[in-house]
Amino acid sequence: MDQTLGVEDRYALITRRLELQNGRSGQRLQSLLADSKAIKYQWATAPTGKPHIGYFIPLIKLADFIHAGGEVLVEFLDSYAFLVNYKFPWEQVRHRTKYYRWLMTAALEAVGVPMAKVSMVDSTSYQGTPEFMVDFWKLCALCSQQDARDTGAEVGSSTMLSPLLTPLLQELGEEYLGVDVELGGTDQRGIFNLGEQFLPELGYEKRVHLMNELLPSLTGGKMSSSSPAHTKITFLDDAEVVRDKIAGASCKAGIVQGNGVLPVVQHILMPVSEIRTRHEANGTNGFKTEGTLFSVAASGGCRNYSTYAELERDYVDGTVGPIALKEVVVDALNMLLDPIREMYKGNEAWRGEDQKGYPEDWPLP
Amino acid sequence: MDQTLGVEDRYALITRRLELQNGRSGQRLQSLLADSKAIKYQWATAPTGKPHIGYFIPLIKLADFIHAGGEVLVEFLDSYAFLVNYKFPWEQVRHRTKYYRWLMTAALEAVGVPMAKVSMVDSTSYQGTPEFMVDFWKLCALCSQQDARDTGAEVGSSTMLSPLLTPLLQELGEEYLGVDVELGGTDQRGIFNLGEQFLPELGYEKRVHLMNELLPSLTGGKMSSSSPAHTKITFLDDAEVVRDKIAGASCKAGIVQGNGVLPVVQHILMPVSEIRTRHEANGTNGFKTEGTLFSVAASGGCRNYSTYAELERDYVDGTVGPIALKEVVVDALNMLLDPIREMYKGNEAWRGEDQKGYPEDWPLP
Repeated sequence: MDQTLGVEDRYALITRRLELQNGRSGQRLQSLLADSKAIKYQWATAPTGKPHIGYFIPLIKLADFIHAGGEVLVEFLDSYAFLVNYKFPWEQVRHRTKYYRWLMTAALEAVGVPMAKVSMVDSTSYQGTPEFMVDFWKLCALCSQQDARDTGAEVGSSTMLSPLLTPLLQELGEEYLGVDVELGGTDQRGIFNLGEQFLPELGYEKRVHLMNELLPSLTGGKMSSSSPAHTKITFLDDAEVVRDKIAGASCKAGIVQGNGVLPVVQHILMPVSEIRTRHEANGTNGFKTEGTLFSVAASGGCRNYSTYAELERDYVDGTVGPIALKEVVVDALNMLLDPIREMYKGNEAWRGEDQKGYPEDWPLP
Repeated sequence: MDQTLGVEDRYALITRRLELQNGRSGQRLQSLLADSKAIKYQWATAPTGKPHIGYFIPLIKLADFIHAGGEVLVEFLDSYAFLVNYKFPWEQVRHRTKYYRWLMTAALEAVGVPMAKVSMVDSTSYQGTPEFMVDFWKLCALCSQQDARDTGAEVGSSTMLSPLLTPLLQELGEEYLGVDVELGGTDQRGIFNLGEQFLPELGYEKRVHLMNELLPSLTGGKMSSSSPAHTKITFLDDAEVVRDKIAGASCKAGIVQGNGVLPVVQHILMPVSEIRTRHEANGTNGFKTEGTLFSVAASGGCRNYSTYAELERDYVDGTVGPIALKEVVVDALNMLLDPIREMYKGNEAWRGEDQKGYPEDWPLP
């Protein structure tokens, strides 16, 4: 924790680039900070398809939470992933969970999150007890089928029984893990609402809910693990694949709307550069000049940027062009992903979970 | 077990007055009997409202199962009762569960079921484990919302989430309790179908399902705990209340259709008399003459009946009239219920659970 930060500074650090679920979340967060409590944050991910770089956005925020004096719990929603998938056997979901655990550890290290303040847990590790079960029955008895459907489009459109259970399981986890704050994407709004509605009916307190923006696709729209490969970059794409995908991304000169490359700078590269600058007093990371966060070839020579807003301004007025932007984004992304790829290559156990969790990606033996 | 019975005799004893869920249930039961296995039977009841005498019908069958060499497990579906009720707190459902346990013990003893072969279990005693939870998630991921709704009218018409879970919980219990056969009312047909459909997908075997008829209401239609008091007799109604309710029951001279009294004789009094005759070589129970099962004042003097069919024939032709029938049914029912009422009066713990489980029946302190 940075002892030089006052309560207001820490509030600003925690909430920057995030949306608060509601006014109560803001007030409660202020009050937790005023109590000088070590705030416990939760970020949860369901081990389904292979993660894309959009996951960097919440991971980067975890560094801010820790910098503001907090502790972080990363939860792998294994039962949730099983209940929404319908087709992958339970054992395969367990392998995916272990794959995710290795991957998130590598990614957190890559963005510079201090791992001493991070712990990890699988949902099933605390769900199989009489106490949890009875609390889960209580939630199910409070919740209408429509309440569950209203939490999100995927759950809402399903005709199967199991997806309806997932929002309640996730929210009950906040109590069983004893967290103060849960961070999720803006697509979690309905789930967070459900928790705020029903946890108090079990005598449990409403949690603070913070939401990060979702990274747009390289070709516009939402980046999603269920969209075609060329619309997203995964954590383990090869350097050449990253180059090809960025080369093919939407990036019209001077146009921000629908641009697939600028959001990578805004939501990932600039924030990561800032974390690194904070940690490495004398560090250089190859895509910035000392004292700045990002450097791009521009008309009239290389320009160094301290904020995304400055870069966007120069992009809009034509000082920075698409080719130069793509070039530096490829280099920066590859520099960010390189240690993750290296860890994967050197980790046989991780590769084993990959093979068992995603057998379709592997040649038949 | 009656060692004098062959496989076919035992099959007939087990299945008499019951409906088999399907042909497979019959074949499987034959095969269990041929294996000379001590068959394990389950009868499950959800501790909701106070039981009426319709519950005698399955309880009486348990005596047949034991007489044919089996063992019986009575399951109290506490979580089920909670998940379908929406309004009673979990603790109240737990008190109702204990009330049911005392009541069913007393009722089983009253009808002459050998208690050494009966054990009792609450659902939550085995549901709060990681193994059960994962199996439950698996069932929920196989089952569509419509599959759950199709199991019965109450679940099907509910807009709440929790009732959809109850059929799956009940059927998974068959595996976790290790039973061979489950007995339920004909209203359980859909739930049994669901179990036969999905348990094999978890690698578990389909159980044999047997169904008993439901006792009609005293005024015609189904006897239900949610219907008005005068349409049903509860296990703990006073002798005078029983007399009044039978006095008010539908019982047109010579008419079987819609008659509320004849089914009590057919489904309860005759079968109970038979169990008692079997147990008490020299026993008399006040409403039969030795060597017969049931005696009624008839034109030309008291007539003794060995079967319900004979009585019904005499009722239809007017030999036995409604007043004489009601008189003997009141006496026989009160004789059957008397030890249950006595046990209740002598059992402070049971009365305590009554007060906590059904506070609306008690004056305010």
